Amino acid sequence: MNAAAMSEVMLDFERRRRTGLDEAIFAMGKSVAQLDVILARSEERRVSLLITRLSAEQHAQLAPRWAAKLDYCSVSRTAIFGVVAPAVADNRIAIVAAGSSDAAVAREAQRTLTYQGIAPEVIVDVGVAGLWRLMQRIEELRRFSVVIAVAGMDAALPTVLAGLVPGVIIAVPTSVGYGVAAGGHTALNALLASCGQGITVVNIDNGFGAACAALRVVRAQACASDSL
Amino acid sequence: MNAAAMSEVMLDFERRRRTGLDEAIFAMGKSVAQLDVILARSEERRVSLLITRLSAEQHAQLAPRWAAKLDYCSVSRTAIFGVVAPAVADNRIAIVAAGSSDAAVAREAQRTLTYQGIAPEVIVDVGVAGLWRLMQRIEELRRFSVVIAVAGMDAALPTVLAGLVPGVIIAVPTSVGYGVAAGGHTALNALLASCGQGITVVNIDNGFGAACAALRVVRAQACASDSL
Amino acid sequence: MNAAAMSEVMLDFERRRRTGLDEAIFAMGKSVAQLDVILARSEERRVSLLITRLSAEQHAQLAPRWAAKLDYCSVSRTAIFGVVAPAVADNRIAIVAAGSSDAAVAREAQRTLTYQGIAPEVIVDVGVAGLWRLMQRIEELRRFSVVIAVAGMDAALPTVLAGLVPGVIIAVPTSVGYGVAAGGHTALNALLASCGQGITVVNIDNGFGAACAALRVVRAQACASDSL
Amino acid sequence: MNAAAMSEVMLDFERRRRTGLDEAIFAMGKSVAQLDVILARSEERRVSLLITRLSAEQHAQLAPRWAAKLDYCSVSRTAIFGVVAPAVADNRIAIVAAGSSDAAVAREAQRTLTYQGIAPEVIVDVGVAGLWRLMQRIEELRRFSVVIAVAGMDAALPTVLAGLVPGVIIAVPTSVGYGVAAGGHTALNALLASCGQGITVVNIDNGFGAACAALRVVRAQACASDSL
Amino acid sequence: MNAAAMSEVMLDFERRRRTGLDEAIFAMGKSVAQLDVILARSEERRVSLLITRLSAEQHAQLAPRWAAKLDYCSVSRTAIFGVVAPAVADNRIAIVAAGSSDAAVAREAQRTLTYQGIAPEVIVDVGVAGLWRLMQRIEELRRFSVVIAVAGMDAALPTVLAGLVPGVIIAVPTSVGYGVAAGGHTALNALLASCGQGITVVNIDNGFGAACAALRVVRAQACASDSL
Amino acid sequence: MNAAAMSEVMLDFERRRRTGLDEAIFAMGKSVAQLDVILARSEERRVSLLITRLSAEQHAQLAPRWAAKLDYCSVSRTAIFGVVAPAVADNRIAIVAAGSSDAAVAREAQRTLTYQGIAPEVIVDVGVAGLWRLMQRIEELRRFSVVIAVAGMDAALPTVLAGLVPGVIIAVPTSVGYGVAAGGHTALNALLASCGQGITVVNIDNGFGAACAALRVVRAQACASDSL
Amino acid sequence: MNAAAMSEVMLDFERRRRTGLDEAIFAMGKSVAQLDVILARSEERRVSLLITRLSAEQHAQLAPRWAAKLDYCSVSRTAIFGVVAPAVADNRIAIVAAGSSDAAVAREAQRTLTYQGIAPEVIVDVGVAGLWRLMQRIEELRRFSVVIAVAGMDAALPTVLAGLVPGVIIAVPTSVGYGVAAGGHTALNALLASCGQGITVVNIDNGFGAACAALRVVRAQACASDSL
Amino acid sequence: MNAAAMSEVMLDFERRRRTGLDEAIFAMGKSVAQLDVILARSEERRVSLLITRLSAEQHAQLAPRWAAKLDYCSVSRTAIFGVVAPAVADNRIAIVAAGSSDAAVAREAQRTLTYQGIAPEVIVDVGVAGLWRLMQRIEELRRFSVVIAVAGMDAALPTVLAGLVPGVIIAVPTSVGYGVAAGGHTALNALLASCGQGITVVNIDNGFGAACAALRVVRAQACASDSL
Repeated sequence: MNAAAMSEVMLDFERRRRTGLDEAIFAMGKSVAQLDVILARSEERRVSLLITRLSAEQHAQLAPRWAAKLDYCSVSRTAIFGVVAPAVADNRIAIVAAGSSDAAVAREAQRTLTYQGIAPEVIVDVGVAGLWRLMQRIEELRRFSVVIAVAGMDAALPTVLAGLVPGVIIAVPTSVGYGVAAGGHTALNALLASCGQGITVVNIDNGFGAACAALRVVRAQACASDSL
Repeated sequence: MNAAAMSEVMLDFERRRRTGLDEAIFAMGKSVAQLDVILARSEERRVSLLITRLSAEQHAQLAPRWAAKLDYCSVSRTAIFGVVAPAVADNRIAIVAAGSSDAAVAREAQRTLTYQGIAPEVIVDVGVAGLWRLMQRIEELRRFSVVIAVAGMDAALPTVLAGLVPGVIIAVPTSVGYGVAAGGHTALNALLASCGQGITVVNIDNGFGAACAALRVVRAQACASDSL
Repeated sequence: MNAAAMSEVMLDFERRRRTGLDEAIFAMGKSVAQLDVILARSEERRVSLLITRLSAEQHAQLAPRWAAKLDYCSVSRTAIFGVVAPAVADNRIAIVAAGSSDAAVAREAQRTLTYQGIAPEVIVDVGVAGLWRLMQRIEELRRFSVVIAVAGMDAALPTVLAGLVPGVIIAVPTSVGYGVAAGGHTALNALLASCGQGITVVNIDNGFGAACAALRVVRAQACASDSL
Repeated sequence: MNAAAMSEVMLDFERRRRTGLDEAIFAMGKSVAQLDVILARSEERRVSLLITRLSAEQHAQLAPRWAAKLDYCSVSRTAIFGVVAPAVADNRIAIVAAGSSDAAVAREAQRTLTYQGIAPEVIVDVGVAGLWRLMQRIEELRRFSVVIAVAGMDAALPTVLAGLVPGVIIAVPTSVGYGVAAGGHTALNALLASCGQGITVVNIDNGFGAACAALRVVRAQACASDSL
Repeated sequence: MNAAAMSEVMLDFERRRRTGLDEAIFAMGKSVAQLDVILARSEERRVSLLITRLSAEQHAQLAPRWAAKLDYCSVSRTAIFGVVAPAVADNRIAIVAAGSSDAAVAREAQRTLTYQGIAPEVIVDVGVAGLWRLMQRIEELRRFSVVIAVAGMDAALPTVLAGLVPGVIIAVPTSVGYGVAAGGHTALNALLASCGQGITVVNIDNGFGAACAALRVVRAQACASDSL
Repeated sequence: MNAAAMSEVMLDFERRRRTGLDEAIFAMGKSVAQLDVILARSEERRVSLLITRLSAEQHAQLAPRWAAKLDYCSVSRTAIFGVVAPAVADNRIAIVAAGSSDAAVAREAQRTLTYQGIAPEVIVDVGVAGLWRLMQRIEELRRFSVVIAVAGMDAALPTVLAGLVPGVIIAVPTSVGYGVAAGGHTALNALLASCGQGITVVNIDNGFGAACAALRVVRAQACASDSL
Repeated sequence: MNAAAMSEVMLDFERRRRTGLDEAIFAMGKSVAQLDVILARSEERRVSLLITRLSAEQHAQLAPRWAAKLDYCSVSRTAIFGVVAPAVADNRIAIVAAGSSDAAVAREAQRTLTYQGIAPEVIVDVGVAGLWRLMQRIEELRRFSVVIAVAGMDAALPTVLAGLVPGVIIAVPTSVGYGVAAGGHTALNALLASCGQGITVVNIDNGFGAACAALRVVRAQACASDSL
Repeated sequence: MNAAAMSEVMLDFERRRRTGLDEAIFAMGKSVAQLDVILARSEERRVSLLITRLSAEQHAQLAPRWAAKLDYCSVSRTAIFGVVAPAVADNRIAIVAAGSSDAAVAREAQRTLTYQGIAPEVIVDVGVAGLWRLMQRIEELRRFSVVIAVAGMDAALPTVLAGLVPGVIIAVPTSVGYGVAAGGHTALNALLASCGQGITVVNIDNGFGAACAALRVVRAQACASDSL
């Protein structure tokens, strides 16, 4: 392995003990040599890894021995390394995306949850320009503890949701759009300024962060239930 | 009258002939001496005037002889000078405001229309955080040629409206709010980026401009009907 | 068809009934698999479709069976799927573009209107730096119910127009330019801040939205005329 | 009561049934006449109310009969109208503020929770410039289901927290500071860009929203426990 | 005089020799003690001074002995100290302002030129929303060497001018307006992005700077003529 | 020629008569078909043309018959079409660029002037980080009527120049740099905020506009001299 | 003392041991009750305190017993509480301010250094628009280890300095100015983008921070010297 | 050599004498012809050169005779031309980077220091999300005169460091990240707004500038020591 890269990587294997969440690898800006060190150390320790923002270019440049062991999804640019237990469906977490164009971000959230053992319900293309699409799913959505709501452009979906369901709402603005929408800043600001009560927000396109926040919620629930 | 001020004012009395709309006086930044010249020239010509953005301070500093002839509304900061014909109600223009805090901007639009002879329907506090409030008025709203939709913060109301009514939608973002909402730029951008089809937008807090645009629509209608 | 993509698409075929406008497909950010599902569902229902922001790359990747049925325009990045009735010219809608560089956005508006059966008048390269070019067309422009005004950089054209014609003015800022003009935000803000009375504005480069707004105007007219 | 104001207020008394949260009154931008209508309707229905962003000026202008019935806190600009049950302390929600200057925002969150029956733990002045202050409370903080973390300037506190505690983290940026910090946008962006996993964020100075989000979490917990 | 203030002031009396322009005093942010030192040193040297951005508050706080010797204009917030030669009118510099609200900035430019001996032609309220007002002065304007064009909001006036007159155009954006216009940044950017050829721009509300630039032009002319 | 393109081009051959400057063709965003129409019309009229922002890609796609008649400079992306008289050197206009990286913008200004018959003095790489480089040329620079000062990053050069030379200063910010400098907005704002008296500014990288402004100055001079 | 305030203040008396710098109290946003607790705890511990951003209003509201013990400077809004040793002049730190308007920020830096025992050299009004003023002090400035350079508007002074002196340069942008300069962001960005080598920057108007950074330099020097 | 390029390059070989730092070549935006001139002049004078921001494309296009004499590092895009003395390790300067993705910027700082004869300690991947990684190196870091702290996203690392170590802290924000982090502006602003005392900041990704500032510190130390 590359010596400089070895000195540039220090993994935090104790994070789950402290926070309940494994460290994940944010691949953007990392060199192939650094990724190589990271994968080798994980293999050595026999731990699984979730890698986010791994571009198709980076994925293609990894050594062949790693490629075979990575479950890579090019839509969400996520990879799972090592063996993980199968996820279980339940009514704790739903992911709702306003448009088909938001599906990639929804997929990042879904893959992060699946990696941690939870199979979320996923509902796509229910933006409020055709309100009936959301309304026919609303009773179902009222049963979830957490709704991750993914929306770009003006991001009106989470506001409408917040007035109709009691669960925790974690909104993810997306960078879909052009003109004033491009980059997702308008969606982000609209969500922060929303008149919907108790909406929480994460960074633009941050499906991973939304999933981590949802995990914090359901694990806090589990603890609370345990202590009954 | 103040000589400098006299040389600084040149009114456009022919605008109605060209565009169907009277010139209105934008008072922000004008001195009392300039306003004095403007009122005197209107009186001389025996024409009525709509004045917008006339602050309470400016209004209080005007010469007493003008104050008596001005119908001033401190909520919308508009004044009407001279005699205008009574407005007539019809189902052409509705003004819909998302929250009580948006009422001042809705009032500016309403006063502009009334000055031009049209009494609009006004519906306030029907934001989408409590969606039932809008839904119980929606059939009524489907009958109007133009809906002026006033909303601050994330401005989700016009997007929902655009998916439900066929009329022209003129959205007015308002500066209501704090943090990322303050100043109305988030509301403005959300409206421009809206996934609602065919929404048009005017400047922040510009109830006057929305009313003028609505007048252009109903006058174009009248012309079209005349030519049948 | 791709199963994931099938679950990510939910079309709103009833939009015309509610709003008078068909749903259009915004292709930016959609995968080829998603577009495939959309076209198949439209074919199945025997409805025509307007697709916007379809890049040349996306168009080239579509299955051959679709390419033959799409009328694609690479300048405006729009495609029309299925059979549509021929458009009729009349004096209701004009499109005016300030410079040759704004022609692509004007074309998107034009194609959207044509798809809906209206052939607009189109006038290009009449920016105010050479004012005579606009002035020689102004009497003609005074006859239209709606003028869609397309302009980039400082977007002074719609302001001058608004002082000269009585019709509805829907301004489209374009992203033409460099330095402070790049991206179209300066054109957008200049239009919103315009001293021209009753100008309405849509998102940067949004020829489609301007056309939809124009359609709302002429349909409201038709209704008003019908009820005479 | 003022007739115009009466037509400008439409309360959403059913929100709790739908979302588990009462509607709260956002006083910023509301007239005294509008607030008067709101209080009268609540009294009539015999429901309590939480009012936020009620400035000292607005409070002073309310009719005397209301002032006596309002529990007003000038630091957080919140008022409680009517009788509410005493709050109960438990280990579900903690509020942590980085500096003394952030105390007003923390207080808004605290008052919102107290109004809903939960007395949170409040810890102030534990910013990371003197890291020992936070570290001596960290074991205690690891026991809470939700930590509301309030911080201005560079807002580094929630990032450090996120690496040390397993609970849900709801970060509130504050507008404390000057230069690039003024207005809270830097704190907001730093929180959204944080490398701390699973941090959720609300609008600048939005202690109320953070409390509502925390209530969604603990109520989702309660439901989950009930269904055991 | 205040000792600290004395050490904080170092006047540049040789600037005219180097650049043809006297140093002017920018009063914003200066203490009364500092202004006192500045006036005393000028008096001592028997030189006149132009002071800009001198607020009414600062002016009122100056020692009485200075007030009597200052020609103060509260509209433009400029003061002239000492004796200056009377200005001469000629056809070298014109100042054109789009609206009455822009008159204060035009006045700052006018006073700066007058202080330097040139009486400019001043034309106010000829914005392009009523194009005929500008057109009836255009032949006259074609005769000036320099046109200082003052405009706020969308600042379309200088663009139209640039297509019609051959002289040097120095555009001054103003902070008149609200919403996206507030502060003058939209006017500034529209001027920089203008399709009018050869427009030059100065800072928002900087009538003083525009006048200095105009002086550079006419002095360069004088030199060129001298060398014939 | 392409019919659509023909309807999208309307040249302003009378601009020189009105303003003293020929229309130039801004190629950015224009199609090859549009450029083809433009060149054909110029050839037909036997007039020369200056084309700016003509990318290497556009240039390569032009029909071979045009390529032979174009004098193309890839550094400044300008092309000259047709025959122009040789330029004459004199001491009216100098171009000063702060760094070697600013040379492309300086070249655009230089080519524009040459096209109009004036050969400017060009001085490059005299940024103020090594002040002696500027100081050894300063006496020479004091003799020019106009100095076009090109600078990126913090653009300190024109400020220093403005304190040392009497000529007209037209500053051109450049987009050279990274981080906060990228795009040239910092250079632009620094120039507008400069404490140097009477600096005028044009858009980022707008060497063409600076040259046009300089031409307005020297032509105003010529007129003034003529009228002696 | 106020109980709530007592729980909101936790001082970091050990900071000097860790970092060499005492904690200072940032008064902006703190209540009088909180300041009261802070002063009482310092008195109890018999330590001195530096308070920054203490507005005249806050100072006036403090209990009389504190006012007598505070050395307050209204220009820099700083207060010193308790007894501090007299400062010693040496050639380690100089403060250079571009204009008289920047003197308040320079004073904050000066007072912070004096509190820590170092009397800096202070040179004001040597901006580069009159370059000779700086040049006549440059040999002197070359002898200092650290130069704190305070400048607003375009902040060109530190760039010029960086090319002429070898010492550490800590630049402080100030919020002096209007238009694009207002708020100090242009000065800040110009400093960050400066072509001057090795300039470091602190927040806008942050004289305190610059002084702390300078103290870190001279203390690191002292350590280095001790270890010889 | 290219004549135009020769006239566009003027090197500042005397900079070290004035400031202690050699001029370095900023390659971004320079043509290959200009770089050729620069290298030839250095060779002629027999001086070494540091080149920054030299892209792989530029490097590949240099004439073969130069390539052989350049020590090029593609990670940091720096090249060293000519012979330089070997660097010496000591405890004066440490470079600390928060994440592996920040390593390229750290490398630019490291190479700049090495070129000047100082081998810094480099510590990578010690971000505060896993605080223990930093804490186990903190005693070591307390011994350095200068710590260059490199961090992207929310850039919390330098704030924590500033509370724990006494040395000079030069923070370098990096452009690592997406959404609100993209471009590094959030990291930059968080550093400027940091509550850590005495942090200084340089431009985004400016490892070179941080190294130059560090050199100014250690050379000022050396001078101070010499004068003992």
